[in-house]
Amino acid sequence: MKFQYLVGIASVFFLAGCTTMPRGDNADLIIHNGQVLTINTEMEVIDDGVVVVKDDTIIAVGGHELMQQYQAQKVIDAHDGIIMPGMVNAHNHLPMIAFRGLGEEGISNRLFAYFFPLEAQKLSRDLIYNATKLGAIELAQSGVTTYADMYYHMDEMAKATKEVGLRAVLGETVIKFPVVDAKTPYGGVEYGKKFVEEYKGDALITPAYAPHAIYTVSKEKLQEIHALSEQQDVPVLIHVGEFPNEEKRLEGETQAKTPIEYLSEIGVLDQRLVIAHGIHLTPNDQKLLKEADVGIAYNPMANAKGATGIAPAWEMYRADMRIGLGTDGPMSSNQVDLVKTLSYAANMQRLKYSDRTIMIPEQVIEMATLGGAKALHMEDQIGSLEVGKKADIAIFETQSANMMPNYNPYATLVYQANPSNIDTTIVNGKVIMENRVMQTVKLDDIRDNVDAFEADIAEFAKELAKKAIKSKSLMD
Amino acid sequence: MKFQYLVGIASVFFLAGCTTMPRGDNADLIIHNGQVLTINTEMEVIDDGVVVVKDDTIIAVGGHELMQQYQAQKVIDAHDGIIMPGMVNAHNHLPMIAFRGLGEEGISNRLFAYFFPLEAQKLSRDLIYNATKLGAIELAQSGVTTYADMYYHMDEMAKATKEVGLRAVLGETVIKFPVVDAKTPYGGVEYGKKFVEEYKGDALITPAYAPHAIYTVSKEKLQEIHALSEQQDVPVLIHVGEFPNEEKRLEGETQAKTPIEYLSEIGVLDQRLVIAHGIHLTPNDQKLLKEADVGIAYNPMANAKGATGIAPAWEMYRADMRIGLGTDGPMSSNQVDLVKTLSYAANMQRLKYSDRTIMIPEQVIEMATLGGAKALHMEDQIGSLEVGKKADIAIFETQSANMMPNYNPYATLVYQANPSNIDTTIVNGKVIMENRVMQTVKLDDIRDNVDAFEADIAEFAKELAKKAIKSKSLMD
Repeated sequence: MKFQYLVGIASVFFLAGCTTMPRGDNADLIIHNGQVLTINTEMEVIDDGVVVVKDDTIIAVGGHELMQQYQAQKVIDAHDGIIMPGMVNAHNHLPMIAFRGLGEEGISNRLFAYFFPLEAQKLSRDLIYNATKLGAIELAQSGVTTYADMYYHMDEMAKATKEVGLRAVLGETVIKFPVVDAKTPYGGVEYGKKFVEEYKGDALITPAYAPHAIYTVSKEKLQEIHALSEQQDVPVLIHVGEFPNEEKRLEGETQAKTPIEYLSEIGVLDQRLVIAHGIHLTPNDQKLLKEADVGIAYNPMANAKGATGIAPAWEMYRADMRIGLGTDGPMSSNQVDLVKTLSYAANMQRLKYSDRTIMIPEQVIEMATLGGAKALHMEDQIGSLEVGKKADIAIFETQSANMMPNYNPYATLVYQANPSNIDTTIVNGKVIMENRVMQTVKLDDIRDNVDAFEADIAEFAKELAKKAIKSKSLMD
Repeated sequence: MKFQYLVGIASVFFLAGCTTMPRGDNADLIIHNGQVLTINTEMEVIDDGVVVVKDDTIIAVGGHELMQQYQAQKVIDAHDGIIMPGMVNAHNHLPMIAFRGLGEEGISNRLFAYFFPLEAQKLSRDLIYNATKLGAIELAQSGVTTYADMYYHMDEMAKATKEVGLRAVLGETVIKFPVVDAKTPYGGVEYGKKFVEEYKGDALITPAYAPHAIYTVSKEKLQEIHALSEQQDVPVLIHVGEFPNEEKRLEGETQAKTPIEYLSEIGVLDQRLVIAHGIHLTPNDQKLLKEADVGIAYNPMANAKGATGIAPAWEMYRADMRIGLGTDGPMSSNQVDLVKTLSYAANMQRLKYSDRTIMIPEQVIEMATLGGAKALHMEDQIGSLEVGKKADIAIFETQSANMMPNYNPYATLVYQANPSNIDTTIVNGKVIMENRVMQTVKLDDIRDNVDAFEADIAEFAKELAKKAIKSKSLMD
């Protein structure tokens, strides 16, 4: 740990020691009395640190002396907790939270027995709106301040996300068959265009396109989306390398031996692209991804649960690539918090490379914050506690039994912490949870809606269960 | 899910509907208004279920109608939560909680740089007592009601464990060099004998012997311990198959090709033995373990973190062997709760066998409860909610965002739940935590002691860090 102190921006009215003079509020929010993990280039840790916020921006990060330089109406005492950048969940399908827990009985045809009928029959605008709110509360309660999502009716998701107060990159799904919000194949392109126009420039929402995968979106449509993303300057989110040999499922001709080579061949591999999973990547794929400055969302827990494998995340992290952490959707990992994902991020790499010295806690926390910001190409705005960045901040308490002792804050977070240890979550300078109490949307506000969709879906699921095939697993 | 109701034992005074007559307290504790996971042979789930306790024993489990048959001073409303058997953490070194978080910076010589000096210099009786209390609180707060441990000064551990109110199998370590509580090689045998005599027959503590491993305890001492365990009828806990080729590190002659074959060869493989890890087991080893009725503690999270591998737990579970879940010590997994371990239990097996349909949530919960009881040869007393068993019970609330929806309670517990969702923990009929408030030892009672050992160890660790060698990992 380093104890060098950062110097905040020049303070306009430095009145330290002059307690009798009235001092103006030169800041909006001050957080103090905690261990600040800056995640800056030097990975500085500031004991008894202070973070000062004005409007939506961090204006100073440093030691206790900043308390003399800044004044604000709102002062948060971190009570010796850990103050860190809000976490970035780089891959999700948040509204699927409405379906989580279904089809968990060892079903071999889960995609057809559950996913498809649920998405075809139950994805109303209302459901997407209410499920997003539930999911966004879970995200906020676990210290996630930004998430990236690929789903449908992204305007409903945007509305719910803004009400809860999170930052998000929301990609409207484009896929070759009709879906709930697009009655014609590839209707997501048109839906997406309107959505991008509506939300471009929003303080919290970054609209995006989300072509599903190379085997469900044609070459022409991938190129059309690429052109649109250039024109409108928005991200493109896509699943790549989740399954082996995805390129073999392509309909057209290709010389490419891998999905990444294919994306390169058709000219869409660029700095606006974010790929989810990346389990099956050759060294050449990794090189292409690095050269094109593509973002990668590593989903260690979902990929283990789904038995899809372990991405070469350590190699990409060490190659200084844009790699962040995701949970995948709640039908894949059944939870959306990154806290539980932290230990998976390390432990899966250690198993993969048979090396217990790699992916140390400090690296995991960097991946969960700045890494996610880089994966989404947002590191100029978020991912660290540095002057000029947006004020997206999570505070962990360290008073609970599981947080004791706290010798190494990174290890405490990665291995000891639970989501419930998140005390306070701040997004864009706004306190959206404080002392575990949501300040924006409260769970009780939406409980009736959740109960209603749960009852409706539970009823529908009884029918689905009849079509589910219990797996003949390897062991039978 | 099955909704068949269990019939409790014959009620002596059935006075349903007769509200004016005084009714005697024919029970001590009634838990109602929750979904009861019985973990009985039929894996029955009782919606709106009731569990009735008298003294330390479950006397009825069934549906809402039991509320008419039983009366008790203490009635706990589970508020639509999940009522399940307390979990069993089948492998631990709990006092190492005092050291957790140290040596997490990618150290290649962690054993020599941290473990050994910490254990040699810092393991006072006081530390073991206070650290056990801290750990036992974390266990209770996460729904663990029984744990098995291999460590030193087990009388201190027993004292602290009983004060917190947990059930435990405590094995005094036997090892070939002098240790903190035994100044001569194998001094743990004598220490253990006294400890066994002192605690044999205790309501909560099952004393045991804990020879460290086959390569740190001689054949003669393993046989001596085996004879003692037969004579005193107590368990023997040992690490086996944590590393490859442990048999090659044996000093004496052997025909055995594996550690399990060796244990069989020297005549100590029996129904009192509990092996921890079992990562490296041949099919023949598994056969020998099953024939000898040996218990196995599977530690999926610690084994992933330590990059030691994935035990063939699914094969052993399917072979109906005595396999339970453990966390290993807090310098290995950094936490002692089983809630975070649940998803690892499933996900590691799915990765190992490349099959996402195996180790379904219902099986994981069985492993975390009855499986652990079987591993410790205690299934006649604990592990399920059935009439005649000890009242060891955990109640999860289902009102938090992360617990919604709750279509399948097993999936909710394995993938959605956090330790903080545990509301109430009951051991041997005694409520040790209620509504998240500890009823026995409170964290605040020991906070000063924890702060003191943390400060002392943090100071000492600065010296240790100087001897630590940052790893040249595979990737360097």
